[in-house]
Amino acid sequence: MTEALTIWTFDWVPEGTPGPRGYVRDLRLRWACEEAGLDYKVRSVPFKNRGAEHFARQPFGQVPFLEDRGITVFESGACLLHLARKSEKLMPHDPEGEAETLEWTIAALNSIEMVTVPWWFIGLSNNTNNPLESWMLQRLKHLEAVLAQREWLAAGQFTVADLLMADVLRIPKVRAAGDFPAIRSYVDRVCARPAFKRAYDGQMAHFAKGDKLSR
Amino acid sequence: MTEALTIWTFDWVPEGTPGPRGYVRDLRLRWACEEAGLDYKVRSVPFKNRGAEHFARQPFGQVPFLEDRGITVFESGACLLHLARKSEKLMPHDPEGEAETLEWTIAALNSIEMVTVPWWFIGLSNNTNNPLESWMLQRLKHLEAVLAQREWLAAGQFTVADLLMADVLRIPKVRAAGDFPAIRSYVDRVCARPAFKRAYDGQMAHFAKGDKLSR
Repeated sequence: MTEALTIWTFDWVPEGTPGPRGYVRDLRLRWACEEAGLDYKVRSVPFKNRGAEHFARQPFGQVPFLEDRGITVFESGACLLHLARKSEKLMPHDPEGEAETLEWTIAALNSIEMVTVPWWFIGLSNNTNNPLESWMLQRLKHLEAVLAQREWLAAGQFTVADLLMADVLRIPKVRAAGDFPAIRSYVDRVCARPAFKRAYDGQMAHFAKGDKLSR
Repeated sequence: MTEALTIWTFDWVPEGTPGPRGYVRDLRLRWACEEAGLDYKVRSVPFKNRGAEHFARQPFGQVPFLEDRGITVFESGACLLHLARKSEKLMPHDPEGEAETLEWTIAALNSIEMVTVPWWFIGLSNNTNNPLESWMLQRLKHLEAVLAQREWLAAGQFTVADLLMADVLRIPKVRAAGDFPAIRSYVDRVCARPAFKRAYDGQMAHFAKGDKLSR
């Protein structure tokens, strides 16, 4: 008997160009479920008033978090690794395939996003001389060398590592940084997957519903 | 039949105050092995000339990486999660315990270190008006609230999540930021474990040997 997974996100987020709509990280979980054909529902916590109950489930007051038969998991990266164990469409289940998926998932979080997100954040208020610029470009250069040689990061197939890496790299300002044709083609290819579109459309519809409710 | 794990690190790194000696991330892997009583040996790649062979095993030219019976894993966070599956001393193996250890391991990498490392890096050349300061202090404030309530992050026991979080937070400048008594006492407590000292001493001796060889 399979009980649906529950993906928790905000009830609403502001519109902007770009995002946060279309970029809130519940998208990563929706996308993984869509890829694997896992049954899921989406529930909301208030964006504007984040109470003790929210912090009890997500200690940094963020989203998403995942509920799976009484187990709650926060951190989108952790949720992806949790989901990956449910389907070989997200990660092959042999030791080598698991290790490769794991290392590239962590690389997306801690070698790439650890630089791109602070770089992007600083760029919001400072468009010249971003102190993280050369560090970020160097990390992307190393990633470019990898993606020039292979279609998928891990285990010769699409995995949650690709889902996550592409989601990290599709941020418009990150995409526009430097000249990395292999990265660009990789992000286009991964985000062209039908499961990405379903996840993206699902998130946009969810927040549009939030607009109506808050009127 | 158990074959020793191999932890790969640099043959040498410069001395400094503080670090990199005592902070190179092979320490995380040594520490985990020491906690769990896992047999390991340490091997080196050149710090000064990082060649194609190194990049083939660590695409960003960093260390550590781990070799486990023919499987190579890079990213210290991935190595810790890989090792955690070998011993309940590093992670309880029931689904709830695994989920908690996983989420807090990723939180250390992607909610805390994603801010502390770029903040620290910017601070090397800019001691005033660090653009990441308030973001970092807010993240630490949320973590302080958690650590004021419990001894360990996950599953009511020491896990790789504590090892990693303490290693992220023990950086002297991070420790000195803000006023977070629960974090401070947590880091002291975790780093007082004998396995930390053995790992630390092992790393210092390894790089001291590198000094002699390069003379």
